[in-house]
Amino acid sequence: MSATTRVPQEERTRAMRQRLMDATVELLVEKGFSGTSTTLVSERAGVSRGAQLHHFPTKNDLVVAAVAHLTQIRGSDLEAAVDRLPEGPGRTEAVVQMLGEHFASPVFTAALELWVAARTDPALLQAVGPLEQRVGRETHRLTVELLGADESRPGVRELVQATLDLVRGLGLADTLGDDARRRRRILKEWARTLDAALEKGGTPQ
Amino acid sequence: MSATTRVPQEERTRAMRQRLMDATVELLVEKGFSGTSTTLVSERAGVSRGAQLHHFPTKNDLVVAAVAHLTQIRGSDLEAAVDRLPEGPGRTEAVVQMLGEHFASPVFTAALELWVAARTDPALLQAVGPLEQRVGRETHRLTVELLGADESRPGVRELVQATLDLVRGLGLADTLGDDARRRRRILKEWARTLDAALEKGGTPQ
Repeated sequence: MSATTRVPQEERTRAMRQRLMDATVELLVEKGFSGTSTTLVSERAGVSRGAQLHHFPTKNDLVVAAVAHLTQIRGSDLEAAVDRLPEGPGRTEAVVQMLGEHFASPVFTAALELWVAARTDPALLQAVGPLEQRVGRETHRLTVELLGADESRPGVRELVQATLDLVRGLGLADTLGDDARRRRRILKEWARTLDAALEKGGTPQ
Repeated sequence: MSATTRVPQEERTRAMRQRLMDATVELLVEKGFSGTSTTLVSERAGVSRGAQLHHFPTKNDLVVAAVAHLTQIRGSDLEAAVDRLPEGPGRTEAVVQMLGEHFASPVFTAALELWVAARTDPALLQAVGPLEQRVGRETHRLTVELLGADESRPGVRELVQATLDLVRGLGLADTLGDDARRRRRILKEWARTLDAALEKGGTPQ
């Protein structure tokens, strides 16, 4: 096989895998983990059953690959949002609102489906656990950087962690039909409190 | 049927329903929503298939009743914990640690399984949604009372809500194998920040 024919083939394969991953994430959001089947995924992706089974023989193979794909989407989503953040006084609120939106997105919903399924599925947990730890560490590092927080000062690390656990809790509430207005109000207040606690010139209540 | 024979029969029925509910909650924790079947529940509860089907003809009937049962357990769990709270300076931390433990208990895990299943199951959502709203309101009211928080002051309501969303986020992290030490450290710092924000004599960072 010559280089000119091999490259398009590799591209087609990559595009097909990408469609399968996208379809898996979409179906996790729409139908949940238990409602996501390999048949539905290949239909949605417009990929033949044979080709799908060749790349991902089982549902777990598919879902594990989708977790990695999801991790990548989450990372680039956040990095893209970072570029739109203002400098100066409104920055802390902009950072926590950005995190709040991120944890209320379909990408969070798909991840939630995987977490909950992994809780009672050891094989899935083995794939989801380490990835989730990596995403957690990276999100923490990014948040510290964006807030300009000094973690060598006592309590600062815990407040950054609390901020991330707060947006995770708000994301979970959102999946049950909570509304964005409530989330924004809470995060606005948390940003003021965080500013005061981090001594960045915010006004304590 | 005389009163003397009717009363024991009613008691037996109540005890049997109670066993079915307990078994459902246990199975939700152990095997998740999709791994919980009516057959497994009747086996676990030691109740005949016929009797179980008489009281709860479908899995959704069983799970919806278990949600109500769970709601009751969660309420009385919290009320019991309230009696053990100290008065004075350590109270805010004791309140948030109590909430943290409550949201990291098996009862939270079972509720999480129902929430996530309800997200993509309209019939289940119809039962879970209103109950969850009621529990949310009651937990909020209790938290305000325990913290002695004055919600007429700007920002206080949002900080109480943030506290509950935080413990929900910590509870979710806990189901993926997070540890209690991390949770306690975060909540200790949160309590200090909350005390400062609520002007209850805490020391701002």
